[in-house]
Amino acid sequence: MNDTLKRLAAVIESRKGADAESSYVAGLFARGMNAVLKKVGEEAAETIIAAKDSDDAALVHETADLWFHTLVMLAVRDLGPDAVLVELERRFGVSGLDEKAARGE
Amino acid sequence: MNDTLKRLAAVIESRKGADAESSYVAGLFARGMNAVLKKVGEEAAETIIAAKDSDDAALVHETADLWFHTLVMLAVRDLGPDAVLVELERRFGVSGLDEKAARGE
Amino acid sequence: MNDTLKRLAAVIESRKGADAESSYVAGLFARGMNAVLKKVGEEAAETIIAAKDSDDAALVHETADLWFHTLVMLAVRDLGPDAVLVELERRFGVSGLDEKAARGE
Amino acid sequence: MNDTLKRLAAVIESRKGADAESSYVAGLFARGMNAVLKKVGEEAAETIIAAKDSDDAALVHETADLWFHTLVMLAVRDLGPDAVLVELERRFGVSGLDEKAARGE
Repeated sequence: MNDTLKRLAAVIESRKGADAESSYVAGLFARGMNAVLKKVGEEAAETIIAAKDSDDAALVHETADLWFHTLVMLAVRDLGPDAVLVELERRFGVSGLDEKAARGE
Repeated sequence: MNDTLKRLAAVIESRKGADAESSYVAGLFARGMNAVLKKVGEEAAETIIAAKDSDDAALVHETADLWFHTLVMLAVRDLGPDAVLVELERRFGVSGLDEKAARGE
Repeated sequence: MNDTLKRLAAVIESRKGADAESSYVAGLFARGMNAVLKKVGEEAAETIIAAKDSDDAALVHETADLWFHTLVMLAVRDLGPDAVLVELERRFGVSGLDEKAARGE
Repeated sequence: MNDTLKRLAAVIESRKGADAESSYVAGLFARGMNAVLKKVGEEAAETIIAAKDSDDAALVHETADLWFHTLVMLAVRDLGPDAVLVELERRFGVSGLDEKAARGE
């Protein structure tokens, strides 16, 4: 499942400019950044609520919703998950190259 | 950068049970789920604010913060990014296997 | 408009136990705390978004939505706005009595 | 406690232009709208978390924090609680005048 976010971002990107009626993502793009951000806020709240309850499947579901809508948000700005992953790698030293170096490879 | 989230989750997991003073993540684990969720909410708000401004680097930075704290949240519940990625694959039909099948491979 | 919050809380309270179909608030009560909190999160996000835009009427509208849903949240817990206002008075020393005392009355 | 929000807004307004070091609110004003909105988002998350827990005092405390920071937000835009209360009265028909009219006074 390594490239899931990249593949998902490609699907999202492909919806840009599509008829707003043709898909949920095309509809979000048509409504613009504010509509996307309302969903980000809503899904963040639902994630927090799910984390306070005990149903793991619900928490996974809401987190997926939250990550998905942040990908749509990035796409509105012509950004993709790679930029975020590079930032996380830089910050936490978890790039594959770092890891290999750490193992002396 | 395929396995960034998985490697990051391993780093987070390794902080469980560590001295709360030893790292930021160990400190979050020690303070418990509510402390983690406050950060999720805070970073979601900062992501929304950054998305309304025009600095791409700031938006990437805040989104990284948000994803990172959702990974810590999942870890508190002994869940990892794989569960979320599988959910996204299932929902959007973007698993590698699906994609290969779609290409007739 | 002094007692607006108190009157509004009374209206909200009167919807408890009403048929879920009879009003928006009765429907929220029937769906329970999680449904109310999703609205609180959603309206908080919409308030932040509106505050980043320039339309004052939209900001007032979203803030009203946010305050309203926090009143419903308090009502689910059998709390009212008075408890919050007393806390604010206590914290900021803005009770009418304090003010009169400060003026030497 | 009728005029609590109005008195609190007057206190907030009086901090505008004050030395950023002189009070918490003056510091928020000096840091600008984004700093205020981060607090609104953070307090909204803390309110949601408190509402999922069972401590009424904590819920009242967090709701007070949320309302307070929305008042600071309104003040950054030179708006006050009256605009929000009028909107709530209009929407729910709970103005004192309406109430008197309803009673035939």
